[in-house]
Amino acid sequence: MSSAASDTLAEHRAAFQSAYDELKAQGLKLDLTRGKPAADQLALSDALLTLPGDGEFRDAAGTDLRNYGGATGLPELREIFSDVLRVPVPQLLALGNSSLTLMHDVVSFAMLHGVPGAARPWGKEESVSFLCPVPGYDRHFSITEAMGVRMIPVPMNDDGPDIPSVKAALAADPTIKGMWAVPVYSNPTGAVYSEAVARELVALDAADDFRIFWDNAYAVHHLTDWHPEPIDVLGLAAEAGHPDRVFVFASTSKVTYSGSGVAFFGSSPENVKWLLHWQSFQSIGPDKVNHLRHVALLESPEGVAAHMRKHRALIAPKFAAVQEVFERRLAPFGVGEWTDPKGGYFVTLTVTPGVARRAIALAAEAGIAMTPAGSTHPYRDDPDDAVIRIAPTFPTIDELTAGLEGFCTALLLAESERD
Amino acid sequence: MSSAASDTLAEHRAAFQSAYDELKAQGLKLDLTRGKPAADQLALSDALLTLPGDGEFRDAAGTDLRNYGGATGLPELREIFSDVLRVPVPQLLALGNSSLTLMHDVVSFAMLHGVPGAARPWGKEESVSFLCPVPGYDRHFSITEAMGVRMIPVPMNDDGPDIPSVKAALAADPTIKGMWAVPVYSNPTGAVYSEAVARELVALDAADDFRIFWDNAYAVHHLTDWHPEPIDVLGLAAEAGHPDRVFVFASTSKVTYSGSGVAFFGSSPENVKWLLHWQSFQSIGPDKVNHLRHVALLESPEGVAAHMRKHRALIAPKFAAVQEVFERRLAPFGVGEWTDPKGGYFVTLTVTPGVARRAIALAAEAGIAMTPAGSTHPYRDDPDDAVIRIAPTFPTIDELTAGLEGFCTALLLAESERD
Repeated sequence: MSSAASDTLAEHRAAFQSAYDELKAQGLKLDLTRGKPAADQLALSDALLTLPGDGEFRDAAGTDLRNYGGATGLPELREIFSDVLRVPVPQLLALGNSSLTLMHDVVSFAMLHGVPGAARPWGKEESVSFLCPVPGYDRHFSITEAMGVRMIPVPMNDDGPDIPSVKAALAADPTIKGMWAVPVYSNPTGAVYSEAVARELVALDAADDFRIFWDNAYAVHHLTDWHPEPIDVLGLAAEAGHPDRVFVFASTSKVTYSGSGVAFFGSSPENVKWLLHWQSFQSIGPDKVNHLRHVALLESPEGVAAHMRKHRALIAPKFAAVQEVFERRLAPFGVGEWTDPKGGYFVTLTVTPGVARRAIALAAEAGIAMTPAGSTHPYRDDPDDAVIRIAPTFPTIDELTAGLEGFCTALLLAESERD
Repeated sequence: MSSAASDTLAEHRAAFQSAYDELKAQGLKLDLTRGKPAADQLALSDALLTLPGDGEFRDAAGTDLRNYGGATGLPELREIFSDVLRVPVPQLLALGNSSLTLMHDVVSFAMLHGVPGAARPWGKEESVSFLCPVPGYDRHFSITEAMGVRMIPVPMNDDGPDIPSVKAALAADPTIKGMWAVPVYSNPTGAVYSEAVARELVALDAADDFRIFWDNAYAVHHLTDWHPEPIDVLGLAAEAGHPDRVFVFASTSKVTYSGSGVAFFGSSPENVKWLLHWQSFQSIGPDKVNHLRHVALLESPEGVAAHMRKHRALIAPKFAAVQEVFERRLAPFGVGEWTDPKGGYFVTLTVTPGVARRAIALAAEAGIAMTPAGSTHPYRDDPDDAVIRIAPTFPTIDELTAGLEGFCTALLLAESERD
C-alpha cells in the first residue's frame, strides 16, 4: 500500500468509525464462513430424491447393487469421472460420501501401517512432517494436526507451490512424508497448478514414502469459459520414476449434494491395491445404490459439464459481486488485494499485515461471521495476520452483498486503526 | 459322539465315498459362504429406490439435509432405533453405511489417540490385546488383527462369554484393552447374552480404557415369536461404576439394503463426545438424505418390527431347512451338533475335532463353497478344527438344500475317514 493511500485512510478514520457504528446498530446476522453450496445449487440435483428409480438396482454387468460388496465402486460412475481426473478407470475407486474422509483415512492407514515404499508405519517414525502450501485448506491442516504430523508452510504462487521453497524444505528435513495440494482452483486462492509445477512436484528428491495428496476438489468447478487442461499427474509421476508418489482425491460434494455425494480415490496400481487392502478391514463395500443414483443424474462427462454450467450460472454472479464490492469499497483507499478466481469456491483477500484478525473481530461484533483469521494456515497461525478467505456461494446474493459491505466497513476501520 | 455311532460311520465309508463321487460328478456351483440377505429380502426395501421423494429433503426441524453438517445424524432416525438399542437419542449417532466401518474407525482412533481414561494411545502401548469370544465373527477378528492387536479367545456359552474364563484372562494379562461381543443372536452360534452376563461384563475388573465392542447387529432380527428383552448395557455399565466401558454398534445392513443402510454408534456422553471429536477431522457429516430415506421407509419402531417380520417370513424356512437336512442326514449317524438359533444369520455346526477343514475342502471340490474352516476363530485358527459356520440366507431354498445335502455328503465322508 502506498503511503499516499495510508494518509487517506488515517484522514477517514472518524468517518469509518461512524460507518461502523451504524453497521453495528443494524443488528445484522450474516454468515460468510464456509464454502457450502446454496440451496439453489443443491436443487440442481433434486432428481436424486427419487433416483435411481423403481426397479433400478443393477449395474451394467447385472450385479445387484443393494447387497454387500463392490469395493472398487460402480464402474459406470468411475468411467464418468475418469477422463476429467485423468485417472484410468481401473485405478479410480468410487467410494463413500466424502473425499475428506478418504484423505483422513489414507493418512490414518499410513500412520498405522505405512504406505508402499515405507520402511515402517509413519506412526513409528520419530517425527512425520507435511508440506502445506499457504494459504491453504483448513480441513487438510486439521487432519495432519490431529494425527500429530508436523506442518511446514510453503508459499503458493499463481501456478502452484513455490518449487524452490519446496526443494529447500525437503533438503533440510528428512521427516517430510507428504504434501497437501489442491491443484485446480486452489482453496482459497483459486490458483491453478501448471503442468510445469506438477512435473517438478512428482520429480522431487524425497523419501520413498513421500506422498502428494492431490485433492482435485474443484476439477470441474469452472466460473469462466476458460477450463484448465487436466493434468495427468499419475502419468507424470510414473514418467519421473515415482509412480506411487500421488494420491488423487475428488468428490461430487459440490457437484450434487454436499452430504450425499460420492468420493473418488485414484492412484498407481500399487497404491490402489494398498488402499483396497486396508479398506477391506474397514468396509464391505460403498453405497453403490448412491453411485447408481449419480450415474442416472449425471450420465456422462458431458452431463457433468452441463450440470456444472448450471452451478456457474448460479454462483458466478456472487463471485462478480465480491469483485464489485471490493473494487468499489476498498480500491479507492488502496486497501487489500484480492484474487479473481476462474473457478472453485473462494476468493482470497490479503490485507495489511496485522489487520486480518481485527477486521474479522470487528465484523463479528457487527453480526457478520467470516472464516476465522489464520484458518488458511497450519495451526491457524497466519504469521502476517493478513489473509482472509471469502466464501461467496452459500448466502443469497443480497446477503452476500450486505455481508461484504459490512465487512468492508469493518476492514476499513481496522486498516485505519493501524495508521 | 458315541463309539457306537463311530462304528456305524466306519461301516458306511464305502457308501459315503460313492455318494461323494456322485456329488462331484454333478458339477454343482453353490455358495453358502457369507451372511448376506437374499434378493427377495432386499426387495422388501425397494421403496428406497425412489425415496425420500420429490421435495423431501428437510428434517422435522427444517434443516436442509442435502448440505454438509449434521455430525450426529438425523434425530428422527435415531429416535426409531433408540428404544430397541436401549441408547438414549442424545447418545445415539446415525452415521455412514456400515457399522463395520465404525468399529474399525473406533479401534483406529483408539490406536492413534486413545480412548477416554487411557494413559496413552493404544498404539503407544507395548502390546494391546482383545478378548475374542469363540466362535465369533471373522470380520471383528480381522480388524484387530490388522491393527496388530493380540487376540485372546474365550469360550462362548449359550448366555454369552464364559465369565470365569474372561476374569481369568483379565487377571493374567494387563494388556487387555477390549472385547468383541455380539450380544443378540451372536455370530455364529445364535447365543443371546443374558442380563446377568452383561452385568458381569460391565463390572469386570479391567483397565480404565477397557472397552466392550457391543455389536448389536441382530437386535431386531428374530426368527421366532420369542424376542429377547433388550439389555440396557449402557445403564448397567453406569450402575457398575464404568459408564464409559461400552461402545454400542448397530446398522440397518440386514434391515434394508446391505450396502446402502445406516450404521449407529451409541455410548456414554463422554465416549460420544470423544467419537464426535475425532470424527470431526474425518467427516463433514453423514449422508443425511439416506437417513431421511430410511425414516420414510421404516417410520417407527413398530415399522421396523413389521419390516423384520417380512424378513422372518422369507428366511425362517431356510433356517428350518438347515435343521431338517442336518436332522435327516447327520443325526442318524450321530454326526455333528448344531445350533437352532432364534434369530440372526447363522447356524453353527460342530463336528468331530479335526474334521471341519477336511469336510469343507471336500465340499469345495464338489463345487460347494462353505465359510472357510477356522474363520470363526482369531487368526482363522480353530484349534479343534471342529466349528463350521452355516449361512443360510443368501441362496434360494433349493440352492441351500442342494448345498447342504452335498455338504452333508462331504462331511459324512470326512467323518468316516477319521475312524
